[in-house]
Amino acid sequence: MNAAIRAVVRSAIHSGLEVNAIFQGYKGILNSDFSSLNLRSVANIIQRGGTVIKTGRCPEFHLPEERKKAANNLRAQGIQALVCIGGDGSFTGARALWKEQKIPYVGIPGTIDNDIYGTDLTIGFDTAVNTALEAIDRIRDTATSHDRLFIVEVMGHNSGFIAVDVSIAGGAEAVFIPEIPLDIETVISKIQMGLKAGKASSILVAAEAKKSGWAYDLAESIRKKSGFEAKVCILGHIQRGGSPTAVDRILGSRLGVHAINLLNQGLSDIMVGVQGGELTHQDMSSCLEQKKALPPQILNLVNDLSH
Amino acid sequence: MNAAIRAVVRSAIHSGLEVNAIFQGYKGILNSDFSSLNLRSVANIIQRGGTVIKTGRCPEFHLPEERKKAANNLRAQGIQALVCIGGDGSFTGARALWKEQKIPYVGIPGTIDNDIYGTDLTIGFDTAVNTALEAIDRIRDTATSHDRLFIVEVMGHNSGFIAVDVSIAGGAEAVFIPEIPLDIETVISKIQMGLKAGKASSILVAAEAKKSGWAYDLAESIRKKSGFEAKVCILGHIQRGGSPTAVDRILGSRLGVHAINLLNQGLSDIMVGVQGGELTHQDMSSCLEQKKALPPQILNLVNDLSH
Amino acid sequence: MNAAIRAVVRSAIHSGLEVNAIFQGYKGILNSDFSSLNLRSVANIIQRGGTVIKTGRCPEFHLPEERKKAANNLRAQGIQALVCIGGDGSFTGARALWKEQKIPYVGIPGTIDNDIYGTDLTIGFDTAVNTALEAIDRIRDTATSHDRLFIVEVMGHNSGFIAVDVSIAGGAEAVFIPEIPLDIETVISKIQMGLKAGKASSILVAAEAKKSGWAYDLAESIRKKSGFEAKVCILGHIQRGGSPTAVDRILGSRLGVHAINLLNQGLSDIMVGVQGGELTHQDMSSCLEQKKALPPQILNLVNDLSH
Amino acid sequence: MNAAIRAVVRSAIHSGLEVNAIFQGYKGILNSDFSSLNLRSVANIIQRGGTVIKTGRCPEFHLPEERKKAANNLRAQGIQALVCIGGDGSFTGARALWKEQKIPYVGIPGTIDNDIYGTDLTIGFDTAVNTALEAIDRIRDTATSHDRLFIVEVMGHNSGFIAVDVSIAGGAEAVFIPEIPLDIETVISKIQMGLKAGKASSILVAAEAKKSGWAYDLAESIRKKSGFEAKVCILGHIQRGGSPTAVDRILGSRLGVHAINLLNQGLSDIMVGVQGGELTHQDMSSCLEQKKALPPQILNLVNDLSH
Repeated sequence: MNAAIRAVVRSAIHSGLEVNAIFQGYKGILNSDFSSLNLRSVANIIQRGGTVIKTGRCPEFHLPEERKKAANNLRAQGIQALVCIGGDGSFTGARALWKEQKIPYVGIPGTIDNDIYGTDLTIGFDTAVNTALEAIDRIRDTATSHDRLFIVEVMGHNSGFIAVDVSIAGGAEAVFIPEIPLDIETVISKIQMGLKAGKASSILVAAEAKKSGWAYDLAESIRKKSGFEAKVCILGHIQRGGSPTAVDRILGSRLGVHAINLLNQGLSDIMVGVQGGELTHQDMSSCLEQKKALPPQILNLVNDLSH
Repeated sequence: MNAAIRAVVRSAIHSGLEVNAIFQGYKGILNSDFSSLNLRSVANIIQRGGTVIKTGRCPEFHLPEERKKAANNLRAQGIQALVCIGGDGSFTGARALWKEQKIPYVGIPGTIDNDIYGTDLTIGFDTAVNTALEAIDRIRDTATSHDRLFIVEVMGHNSGFIAVDVSIAGGAEAVFIPEIPLDIETVISKIQMGLKAGKASSILVAAEAKKSGWAYDLAESIRKKSGFEAKVCILGHIQRGGSPTAVDRILGSRLGVHAINLLNQGLSDIMVGVQGGELTHQDMSSCLEQKKALPPQILNLVNDLSH
Repeated sequence: MNAAIRAVVRSAIHSGLEVNAIFQGYKGILNSDFSSLNLRSVANIIQRGGTVIKTGRCPEFHLPEERKKAANNLRAQGIQALVCIGGDGSFTGARALWKEQKIPYVGIPGTIDNDIYGTDLTIGFDTAVNTALEAIDRIRDTATSHDRLFIVEVMGHNSGFIAVDVSIAGGAEAVFIPEIPLDIETVISKIQMGLKAGKASSILVAAEAKKSGWAYDLAESIRKKSGFEAKVCILGHIQRGGSPTAVDRILGSRLGVHAINLLNQGLSDIMVGVQGGELTHQDMSSCLEQKKALPPQILNLVNDLSH
Repeated sequence: MNAAIRAVVRSAIHSGLEVNAIFQGYKGILNSDFSSLNLRSVANIIQRGGTVIKTGRCPEFHLPEERKKAANNLRAQGIQALVCIGGDGSFTGARALWKEQKIPYVGIPGTIDNDIYGTDLTIGFDTAVNTALEAIDRIRDTATSHDRLFIVEVMGHNSGFIAVDVSIAGGAEAVFIPEIPLDIETVISKIQMGLKAGKASSILVAAEAKKSGWAYDLAESIRKKSGFEAKVCILGHIQRGGSPTAVDRILGSRLGVHAINLLNQGLSDIMVGVQGGELTHQDMSSCLEQKKALPPQILNLVNDLSH
């Protein structure tokens, strides 16, 4: 996200604007926790994980009177428009502020889950996939040395984007995702066929579904039906953070510049994105209302490679 | 490349074909250095750098009589078609074999330089960019601690793809690429403006042009014109090798499966690729004849972010 | 471990011995799963995680009659001595074979837990600590961005070596280890003092004690006593595997060469180790009977740095 | 180095002292570039490469009158003692200030070269070795895929510590270090023997000797005498910087705390170190006057493993 922040700051200043950081998201607006940013503020941050302006939940922001106070705080500071980096929750707050208080904003999709409609990629996704992949490469060392079955649960916020990419790139034997029910018997028979062919170790990838930890249930089901003992790894929070990949830094840079360009053109209530490699933007309402589907060609690939 | 090899082998076997590895490229054909591959042969290779079937130059392959011998060797082994992973040189050899000896082939673009027309991405590029980026992140630690100017020369085979991506993602102050002449005075004045604004360290990225090492000439020019002493780093061969990124493994897997599908449809003399996120294929002649241009929106981004 | 295997093979061959790999540990002896090794067998393995000769549990080996069969298998293959890389369990098997069947052996300490008496370091420990550290660095990005409290559970097999090193190197606020009971109230008051001083995020490290998962109990205790909500991360199997660090590769190389030297001198029933930087060896009985203590100066360091 | 800075600050404050950062070394003293440090100043720096207080050369400090001015600046700020992290040059400056101006100091050995007498390890060495090792692992992928000979030049400031550790850990075929002349013919015959045994790729490691770049001369000598074409990689500045390893962070933490303890005991003109795993300290004069030798057991290991 720091790449996007840096791009927003640099291109905004270049176009003659002044920029303030708002610390900890909406909480920062309610507390008037603003800080003026210049070119030096964003030097040497592009390689850092996390976000230098922090983030946080803010339940009070669901109340219209709090949002009115927020708008007043922004106006008092001379802030005329917002760039909002985040996901559904963040965007919903910005939309409310736009509708009720006419504070223009542009949304930049930033979540490791990649589950936002209107963009092929969200900032953080490529880094999370590569981090999970490194973990799977390590687990494969153990799986192979010990001839074991592993189930690795990755993040995903009830969507399978991380799980599918990680399972293709990690050479997993099967992937369990919320979008497509997978029959445990099919997976068991695949493992048994692998054993017959001399393959003594297997890795299954599971997207966290509604909640983290269901990989344990999966392991138990497999054990009951087949006798296979699977080790479970919940990757959890190690998938966040870390120095971002080139793809994420370039994506953040592109979207940050694009957001400022569109704000300067007078647009609001939109989300920037990248589709088919090109910069795009869409009405925020269409992004929030639609559910992004896993690309069918990627789903087919999982089947093509793991049979 | 191992991801592509694995995908070719798995999807070919799944479609009922038998697969042979040819070791060391065309040299391997001339020496009948073939080896039958099964599903176990490609287990646990997806995470490895380099290529398990090796590669090598083969000047004799420029002679038609050697190519005739090659075709005979292939037929003697029962090899009816080739999948050729590489760049211009590899494809030219496969084309000659197709035209003269009617051995069908499909090309898969695999080079870290990303300079092949007909695909947005080549296998190895994303890994090379991330490796160069890690090096630049380290160099930035030193540049910042010591308030120094660095010139980092990256690979590129006379094209600027790696250099441009690395300079955006690494937050470089300027990038020198073969495609666009960059005035040294402009760069010097940018460094001087940075110094005035309190920025004591800078990183410049240079694509190797015709030959490796010209970053030294660049440093000398800058020193003569401005007195700035720049440290030079030639990243060189460390940009090759290493465990591939998720993007590269997924790309290799997709292209490998696609190549087998198209061969099975009877196509030949084509190159598979990915454009706008979608799998495509094109006549090899059009890929070899045209020069791939740097995307203008990426070039603009360099300017937008480094002013 | 591959570094040790490589060193054993190379120095054994250099001293005129022949070397066999035994696959999957004692199971491999019972199944006569042997394979002759030469210099080429161990080329390009030093950088790989896991072990190329696999490992495995073998409960039958607890029976004297099975060990007699094992000795006969070894003799039939012409194997006159063993190098045994592992921990307590592996060494106990080798000792029994030595006492009952007079098969000489030398033990090399290889476990990520570093809990073996008679050596300052075991093979795998430095790699595991660095892997856990990378995970903590990532988690710190999130902890800092979100102002959160995290409890990270690391491996350790009921000892605190990994936990202590990781907590010093990761700048953790407190560490829970089996060797030293830590009062939860003390930790809570430390967090509260940190909050007063403006420090909104904290990381606590916990060694897995008798079993993995007790970090959840810890989080619950902290919540009940203080109201602080801690996120829990169980690092688990990602701490195994991965390309080994320089320290581990050099340690493995040194111990492997040393083991062969001592076997060639006619010694048996010993474990090689490194103490104060020097190669040493000790009677295996003394290594198995004594419990290695955490170095007091390191324990003091945790206190000195986290108050 | 940031780990040492953090440890110095935390343990100094804990013992009741106030701490100032001096930016850019001796230049900072001459410019009174001081800044008060508290516990928050050193939060979240342990994982960062480089140094947060910067460093720099300061030729004026060779003049006694400048050192007098420096002492006055320190006294004016109320600074009563120095902790000096660095190598020979930094220590010589601190010694002169001690002898002439009675400003007490304790030295902490911090250089990637590990060439300081009086300590087994210097801060930065383990990180540099692991960084160089990663590069060699990548180069090995290419060497193996292409059957090539590579010469990799590593840093070392005219000493072979990095080169020797990297060559053992990287499985290099030979290592060229300033301490021990190595006959090129011996190396060539080793490569030829490897070729006969089926080993087509080799990696040689060379310490930079008096100046960077002599690996090119080496490659030329090998070519002239044997016809082998070697590719040359100069790792250069990528060996500096980067997030430090666990060994370096713990070493920095231990030495930082130890330095403050000894200053509090009234000692000066000493260097702290670690020998045989234990914290030690020695008169600075003995550290500066003696040359640290490569440990003989490590040198023997290179021979034992590469014959």
